[in-house]
Amino acid sequence: MVRAVYPGSFDPVTNGHFDIIERSSKVFGHVTVAVLENPRKVSLFNMEERVAMLESIVKKLPNVAVERYKGLLVDYADKIEASIIIKGLRTVSDFELEFQMALANKKLNCRVETMFMMTNGIYSYISSSGVKEIAGYGGDIRDMVPSEVYEIIMDKIRTM
Amino acid sequence: MVRAVYPGSFDPVTNGHFDIIERSSKVFGHVTVAVLENPRKVSLFNMEERVAMLESIVKKLPNVAVERYKGLLVDYADKIEASIIIKGLRTVSDFELEFQMALANKKLNCRVETMFMMTNGIYSYISSSGVKEIAGYGGDIRDMVPSEVYEIIMDKIRTM
Amino acid sequence: MVRAVYPGSFDPVTNGHFDIIERSSKVFGHVTVAVLENPRKVSLFNMEERVAMLESIVKKLPNVAVERYKGLLVDYADKIEASIIIKGLRTVSDFELEFQMALANKKLNCRVETMFMMTNGIYSYISSSGVKEIAGYGGDIRDMVPSEVYEIIMDKIRTM
Amino acid sequence: MVRAVYPGSFDPVTNGHFDIIERSSKVFGHVTVAVLENPRKVSLFNMEERVAMLESIVKKLPNVAVERYKGLLVDYADKIEASIIIKGLRTVSDFELEFQMALANKKLNCRVETMFMMTNGIYSYISSSGVKEIAGYGGDIRDMVPSEVYEIIMDKIRTM
Amino acid sequence: MVRAVYPGSFDPVTNGHFDIIERSSKVFGHVTVAVLENPRKVSLFNMEERVAMLESIVKKLPNVAVERYKGLLVDYADKIEASIIIKGLRTVSDFELEFQMALANKKLNCRVETMFMMTNGIYSYISSSGVKEIAGYGGDIRDMVPSEVYEIIMDKIRTM
Amino acid sequence: MVRAVYPGSFDPVTNGHFDIIERSSKVFGHVTVAVLENPRKVSLFNMEERVAMLESIVKKLPNVAVERYKGLLVDYADKIEASIIIKGLRTVSDFELEFQMALANKKLNCRVETMFMMTNGIYSYISSSGVKEIAGYGGDIRDMVPSEVYEIIMDKIRTM
Repeated sequence: MVRAVYPGSFDPVTNGHFDIIERSSKVFGHVTVAVLENPRKVSLFNMEERVAMLESIVKKLPNVAVERYKGLLVDYADKIEASIIIKGLRTVSDFELEFQMALANKKLNCRVETMFMMTNGIYSYISSSGVKEIAGYGGDIRDMVPSEVYEIIMDKIRTM
Repeated sequence: MVRAVYPGSFDPVTNGHFDIIERSSKVFGHVTVAVLENPRKVSLFNMEERVAMLESIVKKLPNVAVERYKGLLVDYADKIEASIIIKGLRTVSDFELEFQMALANKKLNCRVETMFMMTNGIYSYISSSGVKEIAGYGGDIRDMVPSEVYEIIMDKIRTM
Repeated sequence: MVRAVYPGSFDPVTNGHFDIIERSSKVFGHVTVAVLENPRKVSLFNMEERVAMLESIVKKLPNVAVERYKGLLVDYADKIEASIIIKGLRTVSDFELEFQMALANKKLNCRVETMFMMTNGIYSYISSSGVKEIAGYGGDIRDMVPSEVYEIIMDKIRTM
Repeated sequence: MVRAVYPGSFDPVTNGHFDIIERSSKVFGHVTVAVLENPRKVSLFNMEERVAMLESIVKKLPNVAVERYKGLLVDYADKIEASIIIKGLRTVSDFELEFQMALANKKLNCRVETMFMMTNGIYSYISSSGVKEIAGYGGDIRDMVPSEVYEIIMDKIRTM
Repeated sequence: MVRAVYPGSFDPVTNGHFDIIERSSKVFGHVTVAVLENPRKVSLFNMEERVAMLESIVKKLPNVAVERYKGLLVDYADKIEASIIIKGLRTVSDFELEFQMALANKKLNCRVETMFMMTNGIYSYISSSGVKEIAGYGGDIRDMVPSEVYEIIMDKIRTM
Repeated sequence: MVRAVYPGSFDPVTNGHFDIIERSSKVFGHVTVAVLENPRKVSLFNMEERVAMLESIVKKLPNVAVERYKGLLVDYADKIEASIIIKGLRTVSDFELEFQMALANKKLNCRVETMFMMTNGIYSYISSSGVKEIAGYGGDIRDMVPSEVYEIIMDKIRTM
């Protein structure tokens, strides 16, 4: 069984993320959604909130798990016996950065492959930071995030 | 009459900005230059200074107004009855970011269109941050900013 | 009244083209869809067929006309008193080529502005050549072209 | 078992192609290298030669088969029960074209996913057409193509 | 003395080319403008005409020579003892193609370096094919080509 | 003799940097590696450490010097009588930013040319910030930095 890992900050999860999770769960035997613990990056949602949001939206996908990780992604992939890193691509700029990271990861651990999936056209304008900015200004993000987490996101935004 | 809005930080205004303002004033019935109030972004010039600089350079263009705005751009466009957002493009990287914002804005308010104009080749190397950096190191910015605001910018730089 | 011209080969027209036509007809007082007569380029549909297809889909848009043109686009824009050239952008590669053409056109005739609109995400995978290739291999192009011209396109493809 | 298809012209196969084949054979249960029969494109090597070259280099990979196909790629993928299309990416330009094709393929058959792998840095300068051009001018292609097919390629080039 | 080679088709030479020639003649001890003999590419101007046009514009630059070449560029560079290949970059698309060629050339002959110069903004919209197309449609190319060759180009265009 | 300057932060120097230094030392009569003093940017290694690391790796290259500079790069180039600024390019994003800086520098001082060299494919995944991040997470950076400075970098990382 091929195990894959889909890493990210998910601050918060968007429909674009969920689209990649759902599609990769059909391709690979098991997918771990891995939430990065990055002490140097300030997040709006704390780790527990981000994991809980992800768990609520993947519970219908039996071969998907949500975990937190820190340190080198390739080391984490090794630890959970994943041979595939999944990345979603939206734009050319994404592509270049991810490409360099994929080359570096390949060099660090040649056993782990990075595979890229394109984000569906209808989600290509959605990023976590865009969602926060739009919601913060009173814009409607209902079409941009999974319905299970919409209220949670709005509650947090209102208390900012 | 088609009303357009040209949003930005204008910290400070450059010849590249003025080129877009002048050319769009010939295309659209009315153009509002909208200066973003962004409490999270530190600016060199305060809002009053930025508005004053813009007003001094657009006073010969009868169908151009300078306003400040905050919040979602599409909401502001609605409020002033503008159906067009004007964006100047200099590079591929500009293009990608603006493209995503245009898609998000279209989704938030389908009545408002984003239209892109290319920055003229001779201005394509000029950005507000470049102007500040070059002037800060003693470089000559005379060809990069409108003559009406050159002294104002240099006075501010000297007091940094 | 601002008059605009939307040039292209339209061999055949796609939903991506129609999206740009419809949206620009709301922005500008009048839009001329200008079909390029290019003796050096082999087309699947002849000029009469391409004009007829376009006319059938724009007939509900009262301020849109379909014309043929040859020669320099800026000269044609001058002749029909259009001050705007409209271009749809899908990708970074589109952007670069169009950007150079816009700079050249500006140099040739500074009275005419090029304005870019982004193609909607759901149409971004559609090109005229893609439509021909997919239909030629028996793929379903029903979602890619206006319903008014679907049968005309399929008839032509079947006789290839 | 996840079955994948790696399509291409392979005119001729390069080390860049082989790198993708070998790496994807470790990720997926079965990989079909699918050689496109394109009557409209002139190739240096005929179909038999291209298939034979590929077969000679994949014979050590038990889960890789070489086949020819024509028509729509997604239809072919369906026929051989492959749920994955593999594409190798070298450059941003590759990325954009492949991205549009992936969107179109997804639209034509949502059961089939396209997954992208980056070409290793050391092979990123190699393309089939580059190999033919360099060899045609007497340049050394020994590091650019699999050793099993080097003589076959050179024999063909010499008779051009 | 560092010798450089600036290769191209120059069909015809443009102001963009001349800008690169003049600037590189100030940087390197000697510059050879090398006109590619490519039997597979149809040119508007024959080899003699292209060489003559280049010679007429470089005659004031004492350290610049015009030569024809065929075959691999790195072999030609070796023959004339040039250690530098000069390339002018206008766009991101240029960059990618040239980058791959530079990597391939480096692999073929590590003694020869490729160095890139950016085309000045005012010339960035000019290409040889653009010049031919614009002149062919009656557009004014006076600002796009060196004055010494303007009449020669127009004479050829008129007889097309 | 043509003098060149290769500017950067070198925090720390990587194999990618060294590759550019070594190759440009073969092209130009003299190369100054110029380390930017930027009081607004926090660096891991202080100026003395960065200069010392560079000096240890260039000591076998007799025509290469290491210096610190502040202020405008073109002014510094003038002061040391360098007519060439060398930049290494890895990606399209690099290219765009560097291109704008090159245009601005050309405008500020037309006597100084920027020349770009491509980073070799095998080093294209290496950046100073990548090296720090990978080493900080316990990854192996032995292939990414010159052997002379590997221990110095690791000592610093361990004390973070």
